[in-house]
Amino acid sequence: MAEYILNLLPLKDGEREEFESIAPDAIHGYAGRRTLTPEQLARATVILGWPRPKDLSAARSLKWFQTMWAGTEEYDGAVPEGALFTSSAGSNSRSVAEHMFSSMLALCRRLPAYRDCQRARQWRDLGEMKTILGGTVLVLGAGHVGSGFARMCQDFGARTVGLKRRVDGPIPGFDQVRPMGELDALLPTADVVAMALPHSPATVGIMDGRRLRLMKEDAILINAGRGSAVDQDALVKVMGEGRLWGAALDVTTPEPLPQDSPLWDIPNLLLTPHVAGGIRLEITRRKCVQMAQDNLRRYLAGEKLVNLVN
Amino acid sequence: MAEYILNLLPLKDGEREEFESIAPDAIHGYAGRRTLTPEQLARATVILGWPRPKDLSAARSLKWFQTMWAGTEEYDGAVPEGALFTSSAGSNSRSVAEHMFSSMLALCRRLPAYRDCQRARQWRDLGEMKTILGGTVLVLGAGHVGSGFARMCQDFGARTVGLKRRVDGPIPGFDQVRPMGELDALLPTADVVAMALPHSPATVGIMDGRRLRLMKEDAILINAGRGSAVDQDALVKVMGEGRLWGAALDVTTPEPLPQDSPLWDIPNLLLTPHVAGGIRLEITRRKCVQMAQDNLRRYLAGEKLVNLVN
Repeated sequence: MAEYILNLLPLKDGEREEFESIAPDAIHGYAGRRTLTPEQLARATVILGWPRPKDLSAARSLKWFQTMWAGTEEYDGAVPEGALFTSSAGSNSRSVAEHMFSSMLALCRRLPAYRDCQRARQWRDLGEMKTILGGTVLVLGAGHVGSGFARMCQDFGARTVGLKRRVDGPIPGFDQVRPMGELDALLPTADVVAMALPHSPATVGIMDGRRLRLMKEDAILINAGRGSAVDQDALVKVMGEGRLWGAALDVTTPEPLPQDSPLWDIPNLLLTPHVAGGIRLEITRRKCVQMAQDNLRRYLAGEKLVNLVN
Repeated sequence: MAEYILNLLPLKDGEREEFESIAPDAIHGYAGRRTLTPEQLARATVILGWPRPKDLSAARSLKWFQTMWAGTEEYDGAVPEGALFTSSAGSNSRSVAEHMFSSMLALCRRLPAYRDCQRARQWRDLGEMKTILGGTVLVLGAGHVGSGFARMCQDFGARTVGLKRRVDGPIPGFDQVRPMGELDALLPTADVVAMALPHSPATVGIMDGRRLRLMKEDAILINAGRGSAVDQDALVKVMGEGRLWGAALDVTTPEPLPQDSPLWDIPNLLLTPHVAGGIRLEITRRKCVQMAQDNLRRYLAGEKLVNLVN
């Protein structure tokens, strides 16, 4: 029986034809997240993209599902038994790294504070600025995101040190890669501490009050991994004491951040609402499509899929 | 008679000794801009730093003056006749280039708009973002600032085109250098138009309404040269029509920008109060000191000074 490929990816001109030429013998169905029909779901042997978890669970003929996101938490327990599950891990790494790098430079140049002055129509010189040129950037997490971000910092003239659980050789973008156990020793050496860690029991609260106080008084903290990795109450306290040059958080606990959180109002803290990743850049969208096409070729050839979750 | 070197530079520990070992036979006087005495002024054969123009005019023994700024307009007509006049051109180029690059990336990631949301305690996804990866950055002015900025854009994955009056060979940071006469033809090709032009009759109003409309509808405009190079009324009009992804101005006409200027309120325009340069980074301060020391060596050896203005 022919494969039925239910394609929920955000495709552009010519991309349907690309999928159809990769799988000329398959039936290709297209839909949006909310416009797919029960009939499509029942027939689908392959689903690509972003179905609602409850719809995915109802795909009773499913043999393979590839999410268009790097993360997979949304589909925990929703993939029908026996079906292969793959992610698009790596598709948005460049976007997240760019967000971290842009936020770091914005803090160096005091752009959030200057934006506040602008809104108040104040032409005011806020004095001293900061550069990472000649400085040290410590990156927690040395995967696609951490490594891409580190490379940007290197190009800008910083020394980069990556921290990961198990060190098994050099990683592009890093001058040094050290085991996570050296975190306490390395924190006082860093001008920037940048976090790109996945959620795991080992990363929850890793930047607690004690460690925030091990940072240089004028260092910058960046977090674009998971909000749980930073002890937010401790961060509020530490920054309230005048420590840290600034911080940029793209992730918080919980999300959305509650209205009454003191994080909103810290002047030298830049808050963005978990927008570093996702499909916000055309290069990310295109990479997701290409990753789906690459895995579709492998699937049809009976080869091992890339980014297998289960 | 011994030279009297009046040093108004912002010196740190050990730097007085550096000057004194370069000129062991000279008398060294130190002062702040407002603390120098009439006696110091009368004796000074060399002044380094940032005197008030009226004080400089009163230095009747002066043979050489080096300003600590890259620009020299402040001292037009204030340097005593017969005295050599040198600038610190190039000392803050890295700082200005970093400011341009940081502002550009902030606009790409919508950080000014996200800052506004933060201040309003809104956790709101503003959608699509932009990257210069794979894009084209057009730089007006290919001196130290333009070239340094272009290099950063290249490292980030953009194609860079520099525009200057007379093309006489390749310049680091630029994939291409073209004559300014090609501006109209190149504007429609650029994802970013970045301006690092000095003030001159040829640059006043160079980005007028017609040229702003030659830019891509979703392009970014950056100006960190002189405010006079952009027709501000035209920019307000063009952005009011929804054109341009965003703009970042570090310079305006006049400065400070008047309270009633409509520029303050354009949501996707980032305004900073002429702070890209100056001595806001330690690397800039140190470079100014080193440039003064280098020229002092030349002066004492009777060699030609660097960065001669007259």
